[in-house]
Amino acid sequence: MIEYSSQLLQNAVNELARLPGIGNKTALRLALHLLQEDGSRTEALSRALLKMKNDILLCKKCHNISDNEICTICSNPRRDENILCVVEDMRDVMAIERTACFTGLYHVLGGVINPVEGISPNDLNITSLIDRLEKNEIQEVILALPATIEGDTTNFYIYRKLKDNKAKITTISKGVAIGDALEYADEITLGRSILNRTTFEIKR
Amino acid sequence: MIEYSSQLLQNAVNELARLPGIGNKTALRLALHLLQEDGSRTEALSRALLKMKNDILLCKKCHNISDNEICTICSNPRRDENILCVVEDMRDVMAIERTACFTGLYHVLGGVINPVEGISPNDLNITSLIDRLEKNEIQEVILALPATIEGDTTNFYIYRKLKDNKAKITTISKGVAIGDALEYADEITLGRSILNRTTFEIKR
Repeated sequence: MIEYSSQLLQNAVNELARLPGIGNKTALRLALHLLQEDGSRTEALSRALLKMKNDILLCKKCHNISDNEICTICSNPRRDENILCVVEDMRDVMAIERTACFTGLYHVLGGVINPVEGISPNDLNITSLIDRLEKNEIQEVILALPATIEGDTTNFYIYRKLKDNKAKITTISKGVAIGDALEYADEITLGRSILNRTTFEIKR
Repeated sequence: MIEYSSQLLQNAVNELARLPGIGNKTALRLALHLLQEDGSRTEALSRALLKMKNDILLCKKCHNISDNEICTICSNPRRDENILCVVEDMRDVMAIERTACFTGLYHVLGGVINPVEGISPNDLNITSLIDRLEKNEIQEVILALPATIEGDTTNFYIYRKLKDNKAKITTISKGVAIGDALEYADEITLGRSILNRTTFEIKR
């Protein structure tokens, strides 16, 4: 254990080193950087972290994190209310938003079913998803969960819950990534992409 | 620019991304980690950073950072008051303390002379070093500054200022690092280590 000449520095380093991916050396570098900087910077950082932690809300409709009761996506009148995209967490919302390929609304489950880690359907926002489909005229539900066993389990669970609803249920396509050489794709992905082949067409 | 669904999250990410070595993606990961954690963790982090920034002092004797007016090293009666080790900054104090090879006191300059970056001798704690030597019975001053042009310039400047004092002035040895194969040492280091060769002796 490194012995710092200051307990205050030690405390700051310990707290920083608790963050994921930050070890003792990086934490010390960050702490010394803050010490050398103008005092207002440390204050701005602390204030921003506390404000985020204390004031952030979850959107009452889609459960995405939000500054208001209804998030900016759900309250945007230009989004297509007929399509719901079901995702694991808010990082996936960001990832899909960056593609600029989806104009519908989201539903954030807050995880996927994972018996090993003790995450059951009741821990996820599935009841509110069913509720949303019952109360709204939704034409399509896109399941955009991770391509893992847990994601597939959750897909299947949600599919069974929703199959009596008239909404069409789809999942995002899985296959070889754009730009990838076939020889580097793993066998399962390549196999799936052959089984799920689509008709070749030239769009004019 | 990634569009976050929350301005509060955006602010926290922006502040975190200002830290050295932390980009937008890492900042987002840290912010989301704090969001998922227990609220008291974020509070502890913010409090530790602010307390460090606001309450930390510089030791009045050696200018090392400290929780009190006199740091734990300077106030330790078991340290040898006759030897002063002059270093660039507090990281060097820690590095030397980790070796457990030095039992004297330190003097932290707070930098080295660097005309390109506009750091002149007046910006460093050199006056207080001279003062310390005049007021105390110090037998040896070890110059442990970086082995760079700036370090050498500072060594030379301090040497000229102190040469009328009866304290012996030494510098740390430079040469091939312990455990290094000679073929990987750079020419200048290897050349210096040949010129500064020492008599081989077996300690009994």
